Amino acid sequence: MYGVILAGGSGSRLWPMSRELYPKQLLNMQNEDSLLQATYKRLAKFIPHENIIATTGVKHLANVKSQLSKDGKGLKVLSEPISRNTAPAIAIAVKNILTNNEDEDDVVLVVPSDHVIRDIEKFKSSVEKGEQLAKQGYLVTFGVQPSYPETGYGYIKVSDALGDGFKVDKFVEKPDYDEAEAYVKTGKYFWNSGIFMFRASVFMGELKKHSPEIFCLLERLDFSKSDEVPYIEYERMPNISVDYAVMEKSDKIALVKLECDWSDLGSWSSIYESEKKDENGNAFVGHVIDIDSKNSLVYSSSKLCASIGLEDTVIVETEDAILACKKDRTQDVKKIYDILKQQNDDTHLIHKTVFRPWGFYTVLNHGDGFLTKMIQVNPGQKLSVQSHNFRSEHWVILAGTAKVVLEGKDYILSPGNSIDIPLKAIHSLQNPYNEPIKVIEVQLGDPLIEEDIIRYEDMYGRV
Amino acid sequence: MYGVILAGGSGSRLWPMSRELYPKQLLNMQNEDSLLQATYKRLAKFIPHENIIATTGVKHLANVKSQLSKDGKGLKVLSEPISRNTAPAIAIAVKNILTNNEDEDDVVLVVPSDHVIRDIEKFKSSVEKGEQLAKQGYLVTFGVQPSYPETGYGYIKVSDALGDGFKVDKFVEKPDYDEAEAYVKTGKYFWNSGIFMFRASVFMGELKKHSPEIFCLLERLDFSKSDEVPYIEYERMPNISVDYAVMEKSDKIALVKLECDWSDLGSWSSIYESEKKDENGNAFVGHVIDIDSKNSLVYSSSKLCASIGLEDTVIVETEDAILACKKDRTQDVKKIYDILKQQNDDTHLIHKTVFRPWGFYTVLNHGDGFLTKMIQVNPGQKLSVQSHNFRSEHWVILAGTAKVVLEGKDYILSPGNSIDIPLKAIHSLQNPYNEPIKVIEVQLGDPLIEEDIIRYEDMYGRV
Repeated sequence: MYGVILAGGSGSRLWPMSRELYPKQLLNMQNEDSLLQATYKRLAKFIPHENIIATTGVKHLANVKSQLSKDGKGLKVLSEPISRNTAPAIAIAVKNILTNNEDEDDVVLVVPSDHVIRDIEKFKSSVEKGEQLAKQGYLVTFGVQPSYPETGYGYIKVSDALGDGFKVDKFVEKPDYDEAEAYVKTGKYFWNSGIFMFRASVFMGELKKHSPEIFCLLERLDFSKSDEVPYIEYERMPNISVDYAVMEKSDKIALVKLECDWSDLGSWSSIYESEKKDENGNAFVGHVIDIDSKNSLVYSSSKLCASIGLEDTVIVETEDAILACKKDRTQDVKKIYDILKQQNDDTHLIHKTVFRPWGFYTVLNHGDGFLTKMIQVNPGQKLSVQSHNFRSEHWVILAGTAKVVLEGKDYILSPGNSIDIPLKAIHSLQNPYNEPIKVIEVQLGDPLIEEDIIRYEDMYGRV
Repeated sequence: MYGVILAGGSGSRLWPMSRELYPKQLLNMQNEDSLLQATYKRLAKFIPHENIIATTGVKHLANVKSQLSKDGKGLKVLSEPISRNTAPAIAIAVKNILTNNEDEDDVVLVVPSDHVIRDIEKFKSSVEKGEQLAKQGYLVTFGVQPSYPETGYGYIKVSDALGDGFKVDKFVEKPDYDEAEAYVKTGKYFWNSGIFMFRASVFMGELKKHSPEIFCLLERLDFSKSDEVPYIEYERMPNISVDYAVMEKSDKIALVKLECDWSDLGSWSSIYESEKKDENGNAFVGHVIDIDSKNSLVYSSSKLCASIGLEDTVIVETEDAILACKKDRTQDVKKIYDILKQQNDDTHLIHKTVFRPWGFYTVLNHGDGFLTKMIQVNPGQKLSVQSHNFRSEHWVILAGTAKVVLEGKDYILSPGNSIDIPLKAIHSLQNPYNEPIKVIEVQLGDPLIEEDIIRYEDMYGRV
């Protein structure tokens, strides 16, 4: 069996925890692993590591690769050069699998990377049921038995039994509340989980039949020498989901009920649903002091949040933005995100903490003419050899032992040591030792932007 | 006429904007001046500068003096060595006035420092009416015509007219809602504004009669040589308000109606009342993006606050704490403050920005083994000559020109320059020039606490 992890996604609905450049799948919302890492570990229980492949947008590539290579061996990650929804993403993944594998009757499991599934055994047993139908030539979708009339999901209506699953009658768009209530009562409707399974050859056949445009563009790709997807071809792909492109049109669709727990964490209200509640129905995460609130979620990531007498309210605190939202309005968080994007406000785009292949940095303060960061460089890692045209930098070592190369000269610096990097000086910060390095960086200049960087050498291929 | 500004106050009810060490009167809630500064300017319209005196707790002394000396000549500020409520505070102020002034028939106006009054002309005209009654030997209280049944204030019931005011029937404790509603209907009840006026001799006579304990302790104070109030005497004063100690017991009380606007900004809901509202009844301060909220206050001091669908809710964002509170529960903010105090959480005590006689500093980040600050030194100011036993410091100059004295040697540093201050080195940061200096300070060590400071010289008398 092969596995495809869809690791795109914009992260607009969980703002301000998720950002355009750090979407939901990269966050560790509920435990040590990010949702993406948990997804990988779930598949790795029954699919060999080398048979799992991920696809993601080019802007998330470094973060996705970094999160999926913690055990030393990296996962193959295909980069989507431009955002084109799930149909093209799945198509290139299947094409890549077929290029490197001769048996086109192999079964492929496609999973989103930003859902929560805790019961891996039940998940595996559902997948095994799906595998039987997939081997018989069906495009298998996995459906979740609705527990309430959710209006934020698409539904799939089933008819007769088919093996361990059902024949599919039709796909239904997000319903209004009354429709959703009626659907739930019938017992014939399932939530569309976004998990699919098929024989590679069957998917390609149905793609050719129902989305010939994607199929033809796919023909031009050649993964035999490189896994790179050319922008010029991918840009011409239609921006379309796999549901629209194939599933809703095919007559080879079967549905298998997903028997495990499942949450798509699609909004702050679904985060609320998935958290443990106190006797007043409240979920508090982080440093929270509450008096008399009810049925509310207070999510603190860094600072004290005090709540008094709230009802059905969601409060989310991050280092640079606060969200206060009535719980039944959490779908509108996307509107805030869109407003910020329109206003060119970076608060939609990045966090104060930004992850890099070598570690991460946190912006401590951005003032008039200066910017301070805490930089952590992980053991064995190295920032690119670089210079800046518009800023000088001043580093004070907080922890670990740093090697700094400045204008060709080496400096070994311990905690308490500092060094000045003048304007335009060629420099590099390296960690050749076993402990993480922490450095306070003070930047002075104008403009103070990440783009003011000239790279000369880079071990992560960013020159 | 003499003026006494009561500048004590704990600032618990406007947490997190106010802190124990930076209470409400020091904040500029609505314009450039702090409430204290606005109070001084109000009195200075009709009382000579040298006849105005302030009293405050010792912990606020430096801030109060600093705020009241911006025009070059400082106001006399008496320091209460320990918190003992308004009766002892007013008593020492009146005693101080009498010591330095032979005419004990002079009239004294006593005002809190943390209320908002915008219409100075109407305020002055009310004071003039009070002055007539005060000269006739009355203890005059100023009452505010209630505009709604507030349960957070004390009320004063009047009877017959008396000059431009009324005879006082009785003082009433904070009522419940039904009582307050009945009071408002009668037209005979006023809110107690906390503003008083009397001849110094009359106040002293009534104090002697109704609070002989305070009067006797007062006799021991001698302001003829120094304005200092000895801890040993003041500590024995009863902790009692002037209402309890004198006003409610005296039969020489008159009430004059305060004809100006008045708000005590006693809670976040009264801040909401005093702000301008949009067509949905919302007040937004700072960087706020809102969708569909109603009758809510969102108060952002540093970060983006996004609000969606809130109703009758108060959100307050500060650098290190967030408050989210149903508007009718804002009196309970004091409970949060008390919980923090019990937990020894500094969030009740100080802000990330701390004002000093020489300028201010903002804590940017306090991590494991390090602390970063932005320090601003105002023109002509100088930090004490000092050393630290447990931390090294690293300064990067951001703006202005700094003079640093390190182990007896002078350094003149411009933006972009940096200097390391080793453990135990004697040093001083000075601004002999006309522009404010901004410095990023990186502290390394353990513990990193303000108390780790040995002062050798200090132009503000803190050695």
